[in-house]
Amino acid sequence: MTEQDKVIFVVTHGEEHKNRLESPLHLASLAAMLDVDVKMVYTMSAGLLLKKGVAENLIPKEGRKSLIETIREAKEAGVKIYVCSPVLEWNDLKREDFIDEVDDIVGGMFLITESLDAKVTYTF
Amino acid sequence: MTEQDKVIFVVTHGEEHKNRLESPLHLASLAAMLDVDVKMVYTMSAGLLLKKGVAENLIPKEGRKSLIETIREAKEAGVKIYVCSPVLEWNDLKREDFIDEVDDIVGGMFLITESLDAKVTYTF
Amino acid sequence: MTEQDKVIFVVTHGEEHKNRLESPLHLASLAAMLDVDVKMVYTMSAGLLLKKGVAENLIPKEGRKSLIETIREAKEAGVKIYVCSPVLEWNDLKREDFIDEVDDIVGGMFLITESLDAKVTYTF
Repeated sequence: MTEQDKVIFVVTHGEEHKNRLESPLHLASLAAMLDVDVKMVYTMSAGLLLKKGVAENLIPKEGRKSLIETIREAKEAGVKIYVCSPVLEWNDLKREDFIDEVDDIVGGMFLITESLDAKVTYTF
Repeated sequence: MTEQDKVIFVVTHGEEHKNRLESPLHLASLAAMLDVDVKMVYTMSAGLLLKKGVAENLIPKEGRKSLIETIREAKEAGVKIYVCSPVLEWNDLKREDFIDEVDDIVGGMFLITESLDAKVTYTF
Repeated sequence: MTEQDKVIFVVTHGEEHKNRLESPLHLASLAAMLDVDVKMVYTMSAGLLLKKGVAENLIPKEGRKSLIETIREAKEAGVKIYVCSPVLEWNDLKREDFIDEVDDIVGGMFLITESLDAKVTYTF
């Protein structure tokens, strides 16, 4: 394992699956602690988790912190977070509809080329 | 990246998840444009998407084209499409119940050996 | 392919998805037959499948055997089975609440480091 290792998390499940929201972020944070380059690409219904006002108000389970806090922990660990452009197209959204924690909007080709270059591609 | 790079898409979600149907096909088409060898293996409820009469009549979202058109675009880009044999067994289906766009019916061992040889295995 | 090849199956869907329960186990058994080192990590709702009393009483489809038998076949083929620790935390469970077929309780870092070292990481 060298500093250049890359992993990609493709996150596909959204708000309707409350018990699937935290794990990809936790795993991404852990990977980032190993000095791995970690990118998360939110697509399908998961993309809507990053719309302004969603993660701030989403508590995955009673007694836990809101999803935005888990997102911020991942960012602090060095994880990059992307939204896949079809999410915008399907839901009539613009870049400015997403939270500041989103590093960029990317197309499917980004996902493919990054995966081809990555050591692991997780699809959650 | 050489012409010999392989990627596998294992598709597991079917008709009940309308917003998950197009993305794997689009991503597969994009990968094929990079001269990557691209195979899609449809399994679990996703296998039923390739039954005659299903994709032809399935519009993933109002105003969009039917799924069969997205499947055909992937085929034209060079993507190979397979159905995993338990889909036939679980649903009492035969080879001829599937659309012509299906290249072959394959067993689980095909999926494993192809993955071991692939640069990326996506499971959507 | 050498004897040292590793594959990891991350299993994330539980009892509520009856048609997703057998395939990962079958594929893991097949991979183990190729002398690949095979580890399955059950997480999210899938972790609860391995609680005592669940797989023993779970028939994925009428006329089929119970899930515990498919789990035992995988174990006999040499597959190692792990539960991810957040499953215990989220559901107030202890090690002894899980069936004997579980080799160990592991943290997220285990999943990450094993994946970085694996040839394929499947996430079902």
